[in-house]
Amino acid sequence: MPANRVFLDAGGQSPVSRRAADALLAGLADGWADPTRLTHESRRARALLDGAREAIADVLGADAAHVHFLPSGHVAAERVTAGIFRARRGRERIVASAVERRAVLDAAEHAAPGAVDLLSVDGAGHVDLDELATRLGHPSTALALIQHANQEIGTVQPVDEVAQLARRAEVPLVVDASASIGHIEAPAEWDALLAEPADWGAPAGLGIIATRPRTRWLPAWPGEGWAPGGVSIPLALAAAVALQERRESHEANRARLAAHTARMRDALSGLEGVTVVGDPDSRVPHLLTAAFMYLDGEPVVTRLDREGFAVGSGSACGTAAFEPSHVLAAMGALTHGNLRIGLHPAVSDDDVERFISTLPRVLEDVRRSMTSH
Amino acid sequence: MPANRVFLDAGGQSPVSRRAADALLAGLADGWADPTRLTHESRRARALLDGAREAIADVLGADAAHVHFLPSGHVAAERVTAGIFRARRGRERIVASAVERRAVLDAAEHAAPGAVDLLSVDGAGHVDLDELATRLGHPSTALALIQHANQEIGTVQPVDEVAQLARRAEVPLVVDASASIGHIEAPAEWDALLAEPADWGAPAGLGIIATRPRTRWLPAWPGEGWAPGGVSIPLALAAAVALQERRESHEANRARLAAHTARMRDALSGLEGVTVVGDPDSRVPHLLTAAFMYLDGEPVVTRLDREGFAVGSGSACGTAAFEPSHVLAAMGALTHGNLRIGLHPAVSDDDVERFISTLPRVLEDVRRSMTSH
Repeated sequence: MPANRVFLDAGGQSPVSRRAADALLAGLADGWADPTRLTHESRRARALLDGAREAIADVLGADAAHVHFLPSGHVAAERVTAGIFRARRGRERIVASAVERRAVLDAAEHAAPGAVDLLSVDGAGHVDLDELATRLGHPSTALALIQHANQEIGTVQPVDEVAQLARRAEVPLVVDASASIGHIEAPAEWDALLAEPADWGAPAGLGIIATRPRTRWLPAWPGEGWAPGGVSIPLALAAAVALQERRESHEANRARLAAHTARMRDALSGLEGVTVVGDPDSRVPHLLTAAFMYLDGEPVVTRLDREGFAVGSGSACGTAAFEPSHVLAAMGALTHGNLRIGLHPAVSDDDVERFISTLPRVLEDVRRSMTSH
Repeated sequence: MPANRVFLDAGGQSPVSRRAADALLAGLADGWADPTRLTHESRRARALLDGAREAIADVLGADAAHVHFLPSGHVAAERVTAGIFRARRGRERIVASAVERRAVLDAAEHAAPGAVDLLSVDGAGHVDLDELATRLGHPSTALALIQHANQEIGTVQPVDEVAQLARRAEVPLVVDASASIGHIEAPAEWDALLAEPADWGAPAGLGIIATRPRTRWLPAWPGEGWAPGGVSIPLALAAAVALQERRESHEANRARLAAHTARMRDALSGLEGVTVVGDPDSRVPHLLTAAFMYLDGEPVVTRLDREGFAVGSGSACGTAAFEPSHVLAAMGALTHGNLRIGLHPAVSDDDVERFISTLPRVLEDVRRSMTSH
């Protein structure tokens, strides 16, 4: 990345560390063979894959035998939803929070067309636990999809209470931890967990499903197992190394990034027509979203880009760059224009201050150009 | 790979060249960002992805706008089959050759449960064109799945005649070229083409679907487009570079590898109880399968591995290492034990001669140990 660039769009994909890149190359040198075959080369590849799986399982709080690499985060969301749904034959509805990632909502709608019940959220993005309890009590509910942290606003859901309700109702709970693993501790209770290595600084191209030994699922796709045909072993190795790297500096990063986002929340809230959304306390440290009154997101992103700052806008996981955010809509927040910030651990105090001092001028420019048309 | 190892199992995954590894690193350095966003980093990632797509499209004889990266070869087979099948609403059957890859047969059975018509093949592995014409003429046939070259025995199908029949019947034809691209010229006529970069020396973890502008398909999975959520850009770049590298040495490799496999076919055919299967002429240059009378494949592979030779056995694409080959079964060949050889371009005359001189002793050892029990 050029020295003058400040990357503030690290929710999802971000620059890959030297250690993760080295792991990728090591995985390429020793893990190129098909791990299902019986030769020396295949045994070596299998050992690397197993090692990567164990390292990741340890951070997820899962059994390595029940941690599965999928060829993408979208495929992981699709399969965990369809697989558990299929094993609940006779129950035809899925309950999900309205602020789940688009990939998860699409997976639910695909598995149970027209039978997805969306849970409303409050102004900070928390699910309504009473509504959840009611839905879980319904005999037609096959499974629940509730995220750990939100990919746009950073709000952390009360997953312990959610898990307790699901356990009591005997409804399998899938927790999407794609925006939290690598940033805060993994949630403790779930029947299946989703994680995405690109979000913790690994190269993109892999998704992870963890299940419990008790979790029942049936394949709802061609072939056997969660990922027939397998996945890239170099990517799996890089994912494990990147997660280890984040974990080593977890505490230090967490405090530093939380201070950065707190500083930004303060500064942005003071700007006219700007509202910072999401829970100010119960949140992942690196994410922040601000909603604009009257302003479009696109020209703000484009001008900031020209000034050297990469930020996001629209929906974090939409297929188009400026799909309006369903997360903000569900919270009753402004959805006209917004700014989404995801801090990489390498972001410095100086980067943050430069951004804070640049933004008011950019917003003013955009406002002026909009009124002059 | 240690200097004393001879890798003869290059049908599918093989050692990655220096140039492809360098491309992967370059892709990691400049292609880590999400290509759907609007920042500098995302535009650069998108440019790399587009460049890779164009280079591959050129070799496939396809429009770059209709070449799609999928996150695995299995997912590609699943989606192209389901996508085209779904657009043919009202037609409920799929016709496929009995020697397609397991991933393709699984995809067909998943899209059209209990409604897959398998075409028989002759002793050399060629589909029966009369039977194909009859099936294509049936009004319930939604699509045809016919491979270009077989992944185990190397036989090349008469794809021009197949395409002519499909065109006349107005049935979409999906050609699985996963075992041929990078080894021989791409087939000219198809409605959709499958290719797998790992087979041409790229790192595993990517599948490719090419379609024609006229090809109709509908998503039969969650999300929009062929690969919602995208794929690894470094892998796409490495795939393009590896294909370019193979193409530069296509002619030279082709002649050299065909000579190697011809030499092996001769030598192996002369051994007692060994039959070399597949078309001796119309074949890809690098693949060869020998079937054994009385001998299991597993101990042969294990002993050869100890002697420094990596070879395959069983089904090329099975989920377990020694699933019996459905390809050999369809041809009416011996399926008790077999040896599958896939030559990497780096294999030397000396490697081939050493293998030929080692194999008889290994077979004799295995035969002796089997009778002594």
